[in-house]
Amino acid sequence: MKLMTFLSDFGTKSNYVSQMKGVALSLTDAKIIDITHDITPQDIREGAFVLMSSIIHFPVGTVHVAVVDPGVGTIRRGIVITTQTQIFVGPDNGLLIPAARNLGNFTVYEITNQNLMIKNVSNTFHGRDVFTPVAANILNGVMFDQIGPIINDYINLDFGKFDIRDKTANGKTIYIDSFGNIVTNIDGVRLTNVLNYDKKIMLFLGDKRLEIPFVKSYNFVKKGELLATIGSSNLLEISLNQGNAAKKLQVKPDEDIKILFS
Amino acid sequence: MKLMTFLSDFGTKSNYVSQMKGVALSLTDAKIIDITHDITPQDIREGAFVLMSSIIHFPVGTVHVAVVDPGVGTIRRGIVITTQTQIFVGPDNGLLIPAARNLGNFTVYEITNQNLMIKNVSNTFHGRDVFTPVAANILNGVMFDQIGPIINDYINLDFGKFDIRDKTANGKTIYIDSFGNIVTNIDGVRLTNVLNYDKKIMLFLGDKRLEIPFVKSYNFVKKGELLATIGSSNLLEISLNQGNAAKKLQVKPDEDIKILFS
Amino acid sequence: MKLMTFLSDFGTKSNYVSQMKGVALSLTDAKIIDITHDITPQDIREGAFVLMSSIIHFPVGTVHVAVVDPGVGTIRRGIVITTQTQIFVGPDNGLLIPAARNLGNFTVYEITNQNLMIKNVSNTFHGRDVFTPVAANILNGVMFDQIGPIINDYINLDFGKFDIRDKTANGKTIYIDSFGNIVTNIDGVRLTNVLNYDKKIMLFLGDKRLEIPFVKSYNFVKKGELLATIGSSNLLEISLNQGNAAKKLQVKPDEDIKILFS
Repeated sequence: MKLMTFLSDFGTKSNYVSQMKGVALSLTDAKIIDITHDITPQDIREGAFVLMSSIIHFPVGTVHVAVVDPGVGTIRRGIVITTQTQIFVGPDNGLLIPAARNLGNFTVYEITNQNLMIKNVSNTFHGRDVFTPVAANILNGVMFDQIGPIINDYINLDFGKFDIRDKTANGKTIYIDSFGNIVTNIDGVRLTNVLNYDKKIMLFLGDKRLEIPFVKSYNFVKKGELLATIGSSNLLEISLNQGNAAKKLQVKPDEDIKILFS
Repeated sequence: MKLMTFLSDFGTKSNYVSQMKGVALSLTDAKIIDITHDITPQDIREGAFVLMSSIIHFPVGTVHVAVVDPGVGTIRRGIVITTQTQIFVGPDNGLLIPAARNLGNFTVYEITNQNLMIKNVSNTFHGRDVFTPVAANILNGVMFDQIGPIINDYINLDFGKFDIRDKTANGKTIYIDSFGNIVTNIDGVRLTNVLNYDKKIMLFLGDKRLEIPFVKSYNFVKKGELLATIGSSNLLEISLNQGNAAKKLQVKPDEDIKILFS
Repeated sequence: MKLMTFLSDFGTKSNYVSQMKGVALSLTDAKIIDITHDITPQDIREGAFVLMSSIIHFPVGTVHVAVVDPGVGTIRRGIVITTQTQIFVGPDNGLLIPAARNLGNFTVYEITNQNLMIKNVSNTFHGRDVFTPVAANILNGVMFDQIGPIINDYINLDFGKFDIRDKTANGKTIYIDSFGNIVTNIDGVRLTNVLNYDKKIMLFLGDKRLEIPFVKSYNFVKKGELLATIGSSNLLEISLNQGNAAKKLQVKPDEDIKILFS
């Protein structure tokens, strides 16, 4: 089964997504899956997190086209990244890196072979004219060394470091999900090695200091109460049961977070 | 043709929907169709209506995964419901019941067989870790008695009773659609047995009393005028031609509605 | 490969889209692709532009179902349009015409054969009961002369005329995309015959007169600055780098636009 996914900040209202799908389907009979097209416009960091956390369970050989591309039309390069299991196509602006790194070792190719692109590439829409046809060509069996040269000076992106000790953990907020849950970069398995469920923790976030419970799931506190839990991507999350924690706490991605426990 | 659908309140912005699809596609080559992911967060009743009214025309053998699941991680059970034609997988909170009942007799299985789930089930995302893999396993031929025991004490849900007499009909509003049409639980075929099109009716809704026409379609009144009609799900609807009736009348689901006619 | 696409103003929250897909999949094993369901409700003109600009790259034989249909249930006819490469099914209100005309010569059939529709066609939802089953029947091999008679008095729609001279171009705004880019009807290839990139132009739009640069892509100006460029549909666009030009300039579709250059 051939499988191509799309992630973008185009929204679903305009014609951009459908144009990419038209190109894909004119070149391959792959199954087409949308990851999302609702990334905040030009928010590379948000796109990188959603891509990374979405693709873990996809089958070996899936080709992911990701387009959050404020630099389109400039000297920004297009790249293909191969890992041991899945393949990524998109701009060289960091968007693809966390997803690729999360799958282990990876190789980055610069896209230079114009035979793999649409003729008359536009200046503003490489998602349609470059990335989608390159992805279709890969699904059709084009060898990676036909794409272009391997590069090592690609643009990097990561979500910051976290640190877990006996009675404290430090990290960063990295994503606000559609329910308002605040996802951090603090690893869940490692945190549960030093912190048991149903303990109180002291949370430092922005200019706030709050005592909240660390629980197994949202429903272990009353409706409208704050909690900390390990979310479905194995990351520490701050949530509000049946409410929007990010709004209540006025938190954005990339803020410092610290918790204390005993 | 194997066919799996998804309904949820996850929105399309986050990574939850794509994670479910990744799991589905790693286990089966089924065609994947989205019913919607825009159910109002945690509104089981709205999800139940959209599921019920969406699935009527789907082919025999379709497996529907529905996830509006405020009780995830608690003792809330997961269930599979089989009917004579289609199959439902989701939480035991009423969400699946109206759709199943609408297809005739049905049987409810509690999901207990951990071999049909993802290893290391998370506490917060059974849509990905339980319901989707169970659905994929069903499409792959797993027998229903392998899922778990048949149960009869599942959580029920219905949309209230309606009553149609010679000169009056009583019921409930059950859904506001994306155009602002107010869908009620009053059966259209039975209403048209006692009420002809192009008659005036007296509408009692909330604290309002209004005389409006009962017509075949929106366009039988002028732009901006209220009307009653039989909608595409064979239910009485209150609408505003080229406008939003629910906003104008300040109506929500689950309110009493009464009409008089002569 | 059989391919059916859907465009509508139904939104993805309600049950309308999923009902159409259920009908389609009960009649055909075609691959289903969404163009968009987020057309502004009842905005035929916007739907017509998005359809026209979306379908260029789709494979030969694709059948497009488009439903922006404020006249449903009245004497408004349903039509099928055949072109040399793709096929359109929807209401006779202009929606399909620009897309069809853009593909060359076309033929319009009125849909009159009730055997190709769902039994008991509703008064309010011909997308599900007429257009989708007709499209599925076409994909299944029904001959076009079985649909109904060829008609020539279909409702027309176009996006106005443009005019390019030595030092001036006149036209209309036709679409605001999801980033706020203002798409006009002025042809890009013909404009670049008389105007070079990196020149200043004088823009007259609404009651505003502005000097802005004509550049290859958004990023040739600073963040927050206005620019003119040739967009990905080969049309002149007015944009704001990393911002929303339509909001800043308070521009809507179907306004006059004029540019001067030297």
